[in-house]
Amino acid sequence: MAKAAKKKKQEAVILITNDDGVSAPGIRNLVEAVKDLGKVVVVAPDKPQSGMGHAITIGHPLRLVKVNLFEGVEAWQCSGTPVDCVKLAVDKVLHRKPDICVSGINHGANHSINVIYSGTMSAAVEAAIESIPSVGFSLLDHSIEADFTAARKYARIIVEKMLSSKLDKHTVLNVNFPVATESMIKGIKICRQAYAKYEEDFIERNDPTGRMYYWLTGEFVNFDKGKDTDVWALTNNYVSVVPVQFDLTNYTQKAILEKTWKGV
Amino acid sequence: MAKAAKKKKQEAVILITNDDGVSAPGIRNLVEAVKDLGKVVVVAPDKPQSGMGHAITIGHPLRLVKVNLFEGVEAWQCSGTPVDCVKLAVDKVLHRKPDICVSGINHGANHSINVIYSGTMSAAVEAAIESIPSVGFSLLDHSIEADFTAARKYARIIVEKMLSSKLDKHTVLNVNFPVATESMIKGIKICRQAYAKYEEDFIERNDPTGRMYYWLTGEFVNFDKGKDTDVWALTNNYVSVVPVQFDLTNYTQKAILEKTWKGV
Repeated sequence: MAKAAKKKKQEAVILITNDDGVSAPGIRNLVEAVKDLGKVVVVAPDKPQSGMGHAITIGHPLRLVKVNLFEGVEAWQCSGTPVDCVKLAVDKVLHRKPDICVSGINHGANHSINVIYSGTMSAAVEAAIESIPSVGFSLLDHSIEADFTAARKYARIIVEKMLSSKLDKHTVLNVNFPVATESMIKGIKICRQAYAKYEEDFIERNDPTGRMYYWLTGEFVNFDKGKDTDVWALTNNYVSVVPVQFDLTNYTQKAILEKTWKGV
Repeated sequence: MAKAAKKKKQEAVILITNDDGVSAPGIRNLVEAVKDLGKVVVVAPDKPQSGMGHAITIGHPLRLVKVNLFEGVEAWQCSGTPVDCVKLAVDKVLHRKPDICVSGINHGANHSINVIYSGTMSAAVEAAIESIPSVGFSLLDHSIEADFTAARKYARIIVEKMLSSKLDKHTVLNVNFPVATESMIKGIKICRQAYAKYEEDFIERNDPTGRMYYWLTGEFVNFDKGKDTDVWALTNNYVSVVPVQFDLTNYTQKAILEKTWKGV
């Protein structure tokens, strides 16, 4: 009895969020993949928040509403951004730091430069700033009917590994899954972020009243030929894992400026 | 005549943006500070966009309207985020990459962890992703009546230095100004990003219909005792300059995971 109580006390608290919104198939698959690994609590946006990056809501209030979407799992939808969700979850839902924050599974790639625009990854980074080890998962398939079978398997393996490892409290992992069946996937590869970006080209049209509008579009271009990048790994059917940091200091350039900007 | 034409051709193109909106005093002061250093074009948000981080607008169209706010300077207001402004400026206003992108002067600090939430800094980072050297300026004074005299002087010095230096095309500088008069400022200090963050505490109230709402607030806490940080420099009346990068890979942790996650 005492032993059972102790075991319960040690159960990991797992916060789950995403940026596609609480009703997206990706987060449902994530909950299913890890819900027996600890006490899972979901706090996720009430609408899609893709491309919100590390935005926070300052100028207006937030709403938090309990929802009954996942069997046996406490879940809340929040009117704010993914980063707001993490902040509110810690302060007003859990009233403590969870043992891990798990974000996703995103519908679409968050490899390479996408990590910067991604609400999924920004939620994970926010958790790490708060000293909560975290991971963001993304599948390279935008479709609402995407097959999450292999992604679920690997998401579970990675969350189990994180829970059983002594990780730095500021750990953030950016995990992307290729569009592949389980048997096609070659394994997990630790990578660096590829230098790739979007070549922008806004669509330019007139609205029904004749006023011009612009709509962001663009072609993804990989400028990075390295075989140690996330883009390379995914192209070769590996699950890519990039450890991410929130100290943005460019130390190489810092050393250069210290020499060349003396007396400015 | 030919020489004059050549000189004109070589004039630097300076893109100016911000996150407080095109009508903020900070951007007006920045335009005044640098407008004779090249051909200045302003593309800035039509409303405040503080805390928008690296958000981009995907799900709806953007508007771009020419405004007559700065004497002798072409200026546009955009309905999107600061990052949208940079993308639209390059693709639809300038039809080329500017020689430099200058963002700010922000009303309020963007030192330490603020760099991640800041629309001002995200605009600068976006430019650097596009291979445009860039700088974000911020004054540690939120007031609409803040005194920008010293900030203007140093912003000009730094933009001049950047225009005359051979900088890496991905250069981003995060520059913060202390609340100080010119005579109090000790000079410019090249720094690293301090590990500091906000200790959150949402205000919890009922709206007029009795429904609960939450509003983000928080106390800034500096956990970093280093004397090489931006927070230290600003506290000691230096202008802080942190070179920023957009490769978020944590290489130290990558090396650790490559050893410890073998066979996962």
